[in-house]
Amino acid sequence: VPAFGRFPSAQYLVIQNRHILIDCGEGAQIQMQRFQVPLNKIDYIFISHLHGDHYLGLMGLLFSMHLQKRTQKLHLYSPAGLDEIITLQLRLSKSILNYTIAYTCFDPEEQTVLFHDDAIQVTTIPLWHKLPCAGFLFEEKRKPFKIEKHKLPEGMLIQHIVRMKSGHDVFDEEGHLLYKYEDYTLPPQRSYRYAYCSDTAYYEQIVPQISGVDLLYHEATFMENESDKATDTLHSTVKQAAMIAQMAKPVKLLIGHFSARYRELEPLLLEALPHFPNTELAIEGTTFTLEE
Amino acid sequence: VPAFGRFPSAQYLVIQNRHILIDCGEGAQIQMQRFQVPLNKIDYIFISHLHGDHYLGLMGLLFSMHLQKRTQKLHLYSPAGLDEIITLQLRLSKSILNYTIAYTCFDPEEQTVLFHDDAIQVTTIPLWHKLPCAGFLFEEKRKPFKIEKHKLPEGMLIQHIVRMKSGHDVFDEEGHLLYKYEDYTLPPQRSYRYAYCSDTAYYEQIVPQISGVDLLYHEATFMENESDKATDTLHSTVKQAAMIAQMAKPVKLLIGHFSARYRELEPLLLEALPHFPNTELAIEGTTFTLEE
Repeated sequence: VPAFGRFPSAQYLVIQNRHILIDCGEGAQIQMQRFQVPLNKIDYIFISHLHGDHYLGLMGLLFSMHLQKRTQKLHLYSPAGLDEIITLQLRLSKSILNYTIAYTCFDPEEQTVLFHDDAIQVTTIPLWHKLPCAGFLFEEKRKPFKIEKHKLPEGMLIQHIVRMKSGHDVFDEEGHLLYKYEDYTLPPQRSYRYAYCSDTAYYEQIVPQISGVDLLYHEATFMENESDKATDTLHSTVKQAAMIAQMAKPVKLLIGHFSARYRELEPLLLEALPHFPNTELAIEGTTFTLEE
Repeated sequence: VPAFGRFPSAQYLVIQNRHILIDCGEGAQIQMQRFQVPLNKIDYIFISHLHGDHYLGLMGLLFSMHLQKRTQKLHLYSPAGLDEIITLQLRLSKSILNYTIAYTCFDPEEQTVLFHDDAIQVTTIPLWHKLPCAGFLFEEKRKPFKIEKHKLPEGMLIQHIVRMKSGHDVFDEEGHLLYKYEDYTLPPQRSYRYAYCSDTAYYEQIVPQISGVDLLYHEATFMENESDKATDTLHSTVKQAAMIAQMAKPVKLLIGHFSARYRELEPLLLEALPHFPNTELAIEGTTFTLEE
């Protein structure tokens, strides 16, 4: 239930110039407009599961993209059924979108690479919830070594530079070393990883997959004194989210998906800190930047 | 498209202690919380048509009513198809609501009494739009005459009082006049009528049905300089809404459903005033009260 100005789940992720939406709760497009997120830059939408607070904003977003004259393809990933929900509502509103939706249905119980290109990869993280539900691991692939332009000899061939950027030495046709990549490059920038885990009960099985990520978002619906309620509804407490972080050792933990019973969120943060000091609250409209 | 803090259509109507929602665009429940509308007092929801900006907030509202432990029946009225949309999403989220939805599907092209009880009546107003669409006429039935207690003779029978409240004289068994109701009562309070007309092109056929209402809400998506656009999309201009009001002569005209192209709404109001002076903008969170 939305409460105290908080909205259902939706996150906007920009990674290597790819614009991604993770979950799309009711009002997502309204928030995107408020925070000046350009709707039609988004080419990928990942939906974790089919509880309303994670997808009910999608249909409105799809219509708005259409009304804003979108033509480029939209890639949509979710557990089975979302295609039916969309198709039915398009049919009943007699709407034909200007753009194509490329829909991929995944099994949330399997760890699956949903998407990869030359720069990023997205993998499902099987979670434990009332409905089949998966989180998502967003990873940058290894980045190119950085060429130190001032060190390059005049007239070096472009294919030799490309080879050194990928971290390989250059040899001539007889196999003699021509250039050592380390002499002309600096190591690549760090490749970041972000793990989104919502909704889920406390579930240690996710730890190996998310181990050492730069940023971990983990749901924390309840405080520890409501752990019975968390168990019943297959959600996590703040402490449980922090315990997962203690094991997975992300650089930073973000907690969110707070129950409507909490007007103030400071007590939730205070519950997490003793267990995992680098924790922050996922507050509407906040941007978290990972950069060296 | 929601824009400049404006939300899609949704109106909360309280009439004779009946709590009614008219249309339910995305974010309706969020606005209801902001403006302290008690979700679970609402027993009647009327949806004009199945364009997303008029119903996409419904599913989230239904789930929230469930989470807030609603048990009393909810009466839902819409053109055909909304039941399918709801049923599919309940099935896919494996949800069973705590309460019953009594669903009535109506033909928006017919003028039909959808609901009446001892105090109010709701009738469809066939409109002219891309999808079959009906507005709604909410009418208070004739109210009882007001008994002037200090004038009543001692020991007057309750059935005689009831008869006078309904505006009838009281006779004895032989047909002789016992009490003239005018001697003991004041005339009833006025019975109010509210007409909601959205979405629609300029459509004079509605005038007889809404003639003389106390409050007319008429959509006014565009200004007159975009009348081509209004014609194409079967919406109305501000001037057209005001012309309908000029013919129907409501006490007051409310205009709304403004296109996202208008950041400022003052020019729209200024366009209406020369044609119908008692016009107001339907701004989010505003309450309009009809009382003697």
